[in-house]
Amino acid sequence: MPGNSFGQCFRITTFGESHGIALGVIIDGCPPNLPLTESDIQKELDRRAPGKRLTTPRKEPDKVEVLSGTFEGKTTGTPITLIIYNKDVDSSKYESIKDLFRPGHGDFTYLKKYGIRDYRGGGRASGRETVARVAAGAVAKKVLGAEGINVMAYTIALGGIWAKDRDLDFVNKNPLFCCDRKVYRLMEERISEVKRMGDSIGGVVEVLARGCPPGLGEPVFDKLDADLAKAIMSIGAVKGVEIGSGFRAAELLGSENNDEITPDGFLTNNAGGILAGISNGDDIILRAAIKPIPSIEKTQRTIDIYGRPAEISTKGRHDVSAIPRIVPVCEAMVRLVLADHLLRLKAIRLY
Amino acid sequence: MPGNSFGQCFRITTFGESHGIALGVIIDGCPPNLPLTESDIQKELDRRAPGKRLTTPRKEPDKVEVLSGTFEGKTTGTPITLIIYNKDVDSSKYESIKDLFRPGHGDFTYLKKYGIRDYRGGGRASGRETVARVAAGAVAKKVLGAEGINVMAYTIALGGIWAKDRDLDFVNKNPLFCCDRKVYRLMEERISEVKRMGDSIGGVVEVLARGCPPGLGEPVFDKLDADLAKAIMSIGAVKGVEIGSGFRAAELLGSENNDEITPDGFLTNNAGGILAGISNGDDIILRAAIKPIPSIEKTQRTIDIYGRPAEISTKGRHDVSAIPRIVPVCEAMVRLVLADHLLRLKAIRLY
Amino acid sequence: MPGNSFGQCFRITTFGESHGIALGVIIDGCPPNLPLTESDIQKELDRRAPGKRLTTPRKEPDKVEVLSGTFEGKTTGTPITLIIYNKDVDSSKYESIKDLFRPGHGDFTYLKKYGIRDYRGGGRASGRETVARVAAGAVAKKVLGAEGINVMAYTIALGGIWAKDRDLDFVNKNPLFCCDRKVYRLMEERISEVKRMGDSIGGVVEVLARGCPPGLGEPVFDKLDADLAKAIMSIGAVKGVEIGSGFRAAELLGSENNDEITPDGFLTNNAGGILAGISNGDDIILRAAIKPIPSIEKTQRTIDIYGRPAEISTKGRHDVSAIPRIVPVCEAMVRLVLADHLLRLKAIRLY
Amino acid sequence: MPGNSFGQCFRITTFGESHGIALGVIIDGCPPNLPLTESDIQKELDRRAPGKRLTTPRKEPDKVEVLSGTFEGKTTGTPITLIIYNKDVDSSKYESIKDLFRPGHGDFTYLKKYGIRDYRGGGRASGRETVARVAAGAVAKKVLGAEGINVMAYTIALGGIWAKDRDLDFVNKNPLFCCDRKVYRLMEERISEVKRMGDSIGGVVEVLARGCPPGLGEPVFDKLDADLAKAIMSIGAVKGVEIGSGFRAAELLGSENNDEITPDGFLTNNAGGILAGISNGDDIILRAAIKPIPSIEKTQRTIDIYGRPAEISTKGRHDVSAIPRIVPVCEAMVRLVLADHLLRLKAIRLY
Repeated sequence: MPGNSFGQCFRITTFGESHGIALGVIIDGCPPNLPLTESDIQKELDRRAPGKRLTTPRKEPDKVEVLSGTFEGKTTGTPITLIIYNKDVDSSKYESIKDLFRPGHGDFTYLKKYGIRDYRGGGRASGRETVARVAAGAVAKKVLGAEGINVMAYTIALGGIWAKDRDLDFVNKNPLFCCDRKVYRLMEERISEVKRMGDSIGGVVEVLARGCPPGLGEPVFDKLDADLAKAIMSIGAVKGVEIGSGFRAAELLGSENNDEITPDGFLTNNAGGILAGISNGDDIILRAAIKPIPSIEKTQRTIDIYGRPAEISTKGRHDVSAIPRIVPVCEAMVRLVLADHLLRLKAIRLY
Repeated sequence: MPGNSFGQCFRITTFGESHGIALGVIIDGCPPNLPLTESDIQKELDRRAPGKRLTTPRKEPDKVEVLSGTFEGKTTGTPITLIIYNKDVDSSKYESIKDLFRPGHGDFTYLKKYGIRDYRGGGRASGRETVARVAAGAVAKKVLGAEGINVMAYTIALGGIWAKDRDLDFVNKNPLFCCDRKVYRLMEERISEVKRMGDSIGGVVEVLARGCPPGLGEPVFDKLDADLAKAIMSIGAVKGVEIGSGFRAAELLGSENNDEITPDGFLTNNAGGILAGISNGDDIILRAAIKPIPSIEKTQRTIDIYGRPAEISTKGRHDVSAIPRIVPVCEAMVRLVLADHLLRLKAIRLY
Repeated sequence: MPGNSFGQCFRITTFGESHGIALGVIIDGCPPNLPLTESDIQKELDRRAPGKRLTTPRKEPDKVEVLSGTFEGKTTGTPITLIIYNKDVDSSKYESIKDLFRPGHGDFTYLKKYGIRDYRGGGRASGRETVARVAAGAVAKKVLGAEGINVMAYTIALGGIWAKDRDLDFVNKNPLFCCDRKVYRLMEERISEVKRMGDSIGGVVEVLARGCPPGLGEPVFDKLDADLAKAIMSIGAVKGVEIGSGFRAAELLGSENNDEITPDGFLTNNAGGILAGISNGDDIILRAAIKPIPSIEKTQRTIDIYGRPAEISTKGRHDVSAIPRIVPVCEAMVRLVLADHLLRLKAIRLY
Repeated sequence: MPGNSFGQCFRITTFGESHGIALGVIIDGCPPNLPLTESDIQKELDRRAPGKRLTTPRKEPDKVEVLSGTFEGKTTGTPITLIIYNKDVDSSKYESIKDLFRPGHGDFTYLKKYGIRDYRGGGRASGRETVARVAAGAVAKKVLGAEGINVMAYTIALGGIWAKDRDLDFVNKNPLFCCDRKVYRLMEERISEVKRMGDSIGGVVEVLARGCPPGLGEPVFDKLDADLAKAIMSIGAVKGVEIGSGFRAAELLGSENNDEITPDGFLTNNAGGILAGISNGDDIILRAAIKPIPSIEKTQRTIDIYGRPAEISTKGRHDVSAIPRIVPVCEAMVRLVLADHLLRLKAIRLY
């Protein structure tokens, strides 16, 4: 069973390589009669685009086209296909490293698994693959919007600098999607510093989903938290995911970690909005640990495809951190999970 | 799409409630001609059984029967059914709390989702559900054994006390599956202390898989780490999961987190054995954050099913920590993922 | 991907061998709060039981138990497990043919596929496997009943004798489920005649589903007719399936085969209630071709597992025709498809 | 769970409407390192193209592009995307019938199911959808070719005229894919005659697969014949499917229908190459009943979307029979099933 599909009822299948002809996604199972235009999707893609952002000097104008599944501006219940053609792709710079395994990248494992490898820009293993996720997430957003569900992701840590505040109004006003005005400047400085070092940094993204009805999640394996964990961990740079109190729960007493209940609702939200794998109506909160980008200018030891020792250094235009690109991807993945479970919930109710 | 199945090629479907007639699992897709007897499975169930363990005074003699799928001591390629009948089930003590939502439990969300709830011992939401996972994991262990893959889980933190050592020989010699001889005594004391407080504690479990070939994992959604995250997060008490350097990766530089490669292999293992969602042949390492058991003697606020305020206190025989039971469950889930991906890898190779 | 599950939203997984310990099924995805008792299921199993029927002298008292998924007489939304223990199984008579491949049976292909074979009574390839389908079908019947859908199967041909009438009142009053009072006697005589010959016969079963809402079926692959065809063809003895005008459509003109539409509905039903893979609200009608039972007393040529020529003759108690057992199985399979698509339809609707 | 995907291990997802921007398919799970170029696919599409054929005056130059999944002329194990842009689409002629339900078409059911309908050329329900199936089938053909499996489909009946011969050399030398040189002229005449009548005809297609290893098929639901039946029945115009002796089996004695076995193989092939749902190594043979095309010039009664009576007559360029287009589609669907089961077979074998 291949692995390029995600979701059961709201199901996406993505395709495309970093330096191939196009990337895209088929969304199957989207309810009919939802208003949907290319601009709905373009808006989300633009958030992911680095543009004038701090962390990367590259330019990738991603333009989406809707190839199927809508009619007169509405979804029809048939598969929706979104495509983003790669433009002005220059693969020449990858020629020099086509026989090398870049540390921290999928070069080694892709060759071992498939016996063949599209080395240009990481091929399918490139972070660029996530453009299809963000496009699909824009459609999921329409589904969630129809039910009053709102998802938002933001940076709570970058290169060891942590946000103290959760200022959601600030999130979309800074290129790092940071949720703390004061800490933002420190993060900017950290990026400049690491760029000078020829190195890279990671961080932590938090995702908040508001307005979810109770009942989302299908125990005992397709629990909402389990599917969220999979969705988030399937993003290239993610090394950890936690829900609610997360790893801190391991150090709390039961009396501290339990969320007491009153007629007005839960008193706390250590559960992160999910109990026994099912949404409880409270805010859903999760966090993802993002590793530093493996492509760095600093020289590193590696081997070539023949097993011979070599050295590698990534020159030129490269991101210092994946964070600004990954925030919209985390948002998209959470939306995809919620849209899927929203539809799955309907399928167990007869009336 | 319902949620009681897991895996694609090595696929399990579990059933059963805490105080129902039986629990069990159908394993579909197990390769034929593997030697398999009830004692192979019983052995794993016994590890999960609390018996004379520190953390719980309850007694649950779980006896497995193989109902189908084997012939003359070998698997036949047909579905393997394992059943564990519930014995001497006394549900009377749940009568008094049948209208209350226990904080931290699935009582509230199950009723909201299904409109009906088997309140006896948590029903399907009980940790007892995992007995079927452990039974299935014993079959996965046979599959992995045939390929030289070995999986081991152990406790690295309990109630805030952390192991410093990784003494794998000690793991199965103590009822907490602790991997540090010195720290074990402290953990024992912590349990006694918390028991006196009428409270509970969580911890952290680490899982180590050795001998995995490179190539396991199906990008871009069914990556090995994504499926492992789902598998682990689907266990009731788990609130977080991380692979390799995990959340620590968020604070490292790229030059620190990258695993350099030499002709003799990777110099470090921050990747936790997985690159771009595919196993790299190195040890696979993950960690799970376990929350404290929600059933505690301390009085807590809650509401009843009519929304009226109430108080609740769990009297009698209850575990102080889920850790000793969850360690074998984590092992089982990792085995199930690996067995599944081992078979999935074969399905992409023509010769 | 293994093959012992069927359905997407109303999903069953069956297990068990002819001469093993038990047969059974897990039903996952059944809506909660449906009244369901063992007698609901037993009733359907009894219809499949041969008892005093004409076609077989064997006796198989099949008693079902509900192991999980209900509470106080209602479904809870958790997996429903039904089990039927095999009683008084005598496998000794299969000793003599354990090294022979019976013509028309799965002996040859099972051994080739799996490299191991439970030869006792055909193992998993036995028609006895369908007892689990009928049990699951009884639960699907409850789901359909809640929506006013009614499914009925009956014999329209047996050993070359065809029904002219469709007397549905007569169907459950004769052991052959024949729908024609006059023709029934001829069928009875044909059975006696073939029994004397030491041979066997097949026939044709028709299935009629009334009360289906328009909209069932998920183009372009999981069309309602496609899933029905699969469901029916997955029954051991079936060699053909047709919907509505079926094979006759190949000889009609478009003007003859099209069902004209008036304000009062379709004028004819050559479509068999399905247009473009979606139910149109009219009666759903399909037919299945059943091959003669391969176990016959007449001597036949075969080979043994070492490739040596041999002869085989099935002595003793054996059915002359599979028809009386297969009619309830066809009914069950159609119910399973309809219940599944009923729930799938709900999953594409937002409000 | 939506329905636009087919296959488990070799899995396709198709998209596109008759008069939309493009049609296409993602193939996920194709083994890596298979040589694959656009011409491999174009060749198959050209067989489906009507061109100068007898049955249709329309012209649809379908040009395929490979958007992803190959590198330097070989498959890479990543999803293969094939796209065919619709050219010079003129939807104006559908304006006049956009409020009418064409008898025999999906107009009525699509509107009932989705509440919205792309009426241009039938939208997703158009036979044009099968262009994506044929494109995907060309990739499956490469997989099967690597294992020595050969699939061929041909017309054995058209408008009531039946082939007597099975002259496979003639099949690709006539536009009807007829397998009988003598009968071909009669079929041609029948087409002309029906065209003059303003009517349409159906027929029967036979598919032959040679070189299949024993072992394909996953009982008890994903049997090879069950999956073939679904695959074939999912093609728009198909109303029936049979394997081997098919409906004739219903009239044979067991001693006639059984295929006796000798050291040299099966003496007959009434099984159609499949026993107990698993390929037996013999030729796989199936037949599909194709209904006459519903769009005819003859006036028919219908209703409009408001339920008012109306009349309809399809003027202009329309096919007399779907047969010439459906033959390559049947071939493609059988190839897709076989490629899928070939990979599924590998997934149950450990060594």
